[in-house]
Amino acid sequence: MIQKVLIANRGEIAVRIIRACREMGIETVAVYSEADKEALHTQLADEAICIGPAPSSDSYLSMERIISATLVSGADAIHPGFGFLSENSKFAQLCEKCGIIFIGPDSSVIASLGNKSVARNTMESAGVPVIPGSKEPVTEAESGEKIAGEIGYPVIIKAALGGGGKGMRVAKDASEFANSFHTAQQEAVNAFGDGTMYIEHFVQHPRHIEFQILADKYGNVIHLGERDCSIQRNHQKMIEESPCIALNDTLRKKMGEAAVKAAKAANYVNAGTIEFLLEKNGNFYFMEMNTRIQVEHPVTEWVTGIDLIKEQIRIADGRRLSYAQEDVKITGHAIECRINAENPKKNFRPSPGTITDMYLPGGKGVRIDAAIYSGYTVPPYYDSMLAKLIVHAKNRKEAVMKLRSALGEVIIEGIDTNVDYQYEILHHPDFVSGDIDIEFIEKMGKEKGE
Amino acid sequence: MIQKVLIANRGEIAVRIIRACREMGIETVAVYSEADKEALHTQLADEAICIGPAPSSDSYLSMERIISATLVSGADAIHPGFGFLSENSKFAQLCEKCGIIFIGPDSSVIASLGNKSVARNTMESAGVPVIPGSKEPVTEAESGEKIAGEIGYPVIIKAALGGGGKGMRVAKDASEFANSFHTAQQEAVNAFGDGTMYIEHFVQHPRHIEFQILADKYGNVIHLGERDCSIQRNHQKMIEESPCIALNDTLRKKMGEAAVKAAKAANYVNAGTIEFLLEKNGNFYFMEMNTRIQVEHPVTEWVTGIDLIKEQIRIADGRRLSYAQEDVKITGHAIECRINAENPKKNFRPSPGTITDMYLPGGKGVRIDAAIYSGYTVPPYYDSMLAKLIVHAKNRKEAVMKLRSALGEVIIEGIDTNVDYQYEILHHPDFVSGDIDIEFIEKMGKEKGE
Repeated sequence: MIQKVLIANRGEIAVRIIRACREMGIETVAVYSEADKEALHTQLADEAICIGPAPSSDSYLSMERIISATLVSGADAIHPGFGFLSENSKFAQLCEKCGIIFIGPDSSVIASLGNKSVARNTMESAGVPVIPGSKEPVTEAESGEKIAGEIGYPVIIKAALGGGGKGMRVAKDASEFANSFHTAQQEAVNAFGDGTMYIEHFVQHPRHIEFQILADKYGNVIHLGERDCSIQRNHQKMIEESPCIALNDTLRKKMGEAAVKAAKAANYVNAGTIEFLLEKNGNFYFMEMNTRIQVEHPVTEWVTGIDLIKEQIRIADGRRLSYAQEDVKITGHAIECRINAENPKKNFRPSPGTITDMYLPGGKGVRIDAAIYSGYTVPPYYDSMLAKLIVHAKNRKEAVMKLRSALGEVIIEGIDTNVDYQYEILHHPDFVSGDIDIEFIEKMGKEKGE
Repeated sequence: MIQKVLIANRGEIAVRIIRACREMGIETVAVYSEADKEALHTQLADEAICIGPAPSSDSYLSMERIISATLVSGADAIHPGFGFLSENSKFAQLCEKCGIIFIGPDSSVIASLGNKSVARNTMESAGVPVIPGSKEPVTEAESGEKIAGEIGYPVIIKAALGGGGKGMRVAKDASEFANSFHTAQQEAVNAFGDGTMYIEHFVQHPRHIEFQILADKYGNVIHLGERDCSIQRNHQKMIEESPCIALNDTLRKKMGEAAVKAAKAANYVNAGTIEFLLEKNGNFYFMEMNTRIQVEHPVTEWVTGIDLIKEQIRIADGRRLSYAQEDVKITGHAIECRINAENPKKNFRPSPGTITDMYLPGGKGVRIDAAIYSGYTVPPYYDSMLAKLIVHAKNRKEAVMKLRSALGEVIIEGIDTNVDYQYEILHHPDFVSGDIDIEFIEKMGKEKGE
């Protein structure tokens, strides 16, 4: 039995994990950088260990320091959260070597799913629909252009080790290819130290639909329905919801079964997410599998009632899933809206600084996952997400009304935020009617003459 | 269709109602006393009208001023919340006369249920179990003592117009009767201007179990399950939960049917609550019917998914119930804990003043209904309740763990609160095991040597 968990993360997800542990009677150890001495996760955990200076490479990304903190504190497990080391197979492997439970899948599974080419081949062999694309990694623009011609334009060029929109470019036709390839490859080298690319058909006007998976160590795999995460800016999600109104029961079943098949093909254990692109005609394609908890997990929690962080810990602890697929019922509609410290009028420039005054709403069907407080100074070193505002109501229409009402109450002073921008999205006729795809934000920008 | 609602209340319930209206696309008008200029409800509503000085009698209890504000603002309905004028039949009647929709039952129904003797007789005739007691009002100790002897001791002496524990005393035997009667009567005269009393058998070690009712204008009545409100101090509820673990499905059905019968017997329309005392042997007795929304309504909302404030508005608007009894499903377990500005170490003396710093928790299964913020000054004129912390989890055990965890995060500085006291309750073995009755708080006090 897991007795003590070290949370190798910061911000709201660290707070989320501390709360889940506390509710399960598990002790918690926070780690923090020198910039996070006053952070909420540092204050909330049973113990807190400083692991180094502000830059992530010296603290939250330092495997050695985190492993040391775990051994010193006597924690028997590490929860990696998302970002930082959460999808780093070497870190998971190090945990395994040190006899520490890594709350996530095996290091070998992270490694194979983290490599897009390998993941794609695994899925294709298992019969999960994939986007037509290059079979082998591509490192040179010339051979890439030949492959792109075979696949058919438009194509997207992606870094094999990429993520978060980095090392990614679209080429609409052959004339754009070489330039796009070089730009993407250069970004990939800078961000991941590796210029291996692959190329695939660019699906037009798709929705981003992802399925939440839970898999135990005994081969039981279920899905908890989908999330529509089409509202993205530069591949960064802004608003997520569950269920997706574009899915009927037949399509949901088909995509859910594909997701379960994908997880099984990867020998996946723990919570994971299979991302698909969904075309208007109902065709869907595997994009990638995320081997960690997602930022947007609360919308799934609210429509299913299942606590995903607690399930992650139970699974890592060797327990069997206590739900069968038929036990999972989707009730009502949930939407999450990310509140970031950034200025949308200045190209979403991050806005760190001190929160001089703060009021966050509450009430029926309103959930706040945050790690901020009045007087807290948002450090400039990390992700700009301040809080997640999640609502739940009987149906999508009521959920949209609730989210508008709740967002309208938010007061965060002293720094810039995207609250007004999110408020605009919630009033856009296409968002209100649910007629959205991953180009929504770009379209809205053009309408505003940006 | 109701277009604009005036909220004749303050504090968290006013905020709760404003939110529900906003989510329904209904405009809101707040009324506020001079002491509530900076109150959250004053700031949140679409319009706010000052209705007089701080004392309630000059503002929140002034029927004329509230009606005037309604007419001036053009609101077509009044939501009375709880307390203040919510159960005042004269106010409801005044609304009816002025052509304003009173969001609650008819004035005649409020009048008859507000009189305990009349209510009791109505219930008895309808076959709803009542506690053996005086058939007629009692005004003199001598005749009262005779009746008490017939009923059987212990007896409880109650003001006919009472509520909130005022004008209420227990007499364990005949020797105590005269003294208890006089004290209760004097309190009744002071609080309600009326010394009419009645006497009934005092049920020992009961739980306080109440059923939530919804009734439309077309004779459809459903119940939304029970709330266990046994954790009370001087008849003031402190912690409430749903469902009650002492009820099995058979007893729940039986009590629920009695509650529906009670509402029908009273020709009740809108949301209401039937309070029962439940003995360990499964016998239950009608206590009273509350003709308004309750403080503790969120626990019912969370286990049923039904928004009670929205239902109140829909019903007042003449719409039919959209749920049948068989549609009502109880999912998981919800507990509410009231956070008050009071000092438990000084006999729960109210502690108004300025909140210098505040942090309230969030996360999965945590709901906060509050009307406070950092820098807010709690005025000394009104109820001491600051916030309601409500949690929901899979079962009671997890809900208790979650409530402990969330309560442990609460920071309210600058004034005294009952947070530590509530935290103690949540760790008491009898509370944890669910072995509670309405004497729990008294017993806990004795254990602590108070």
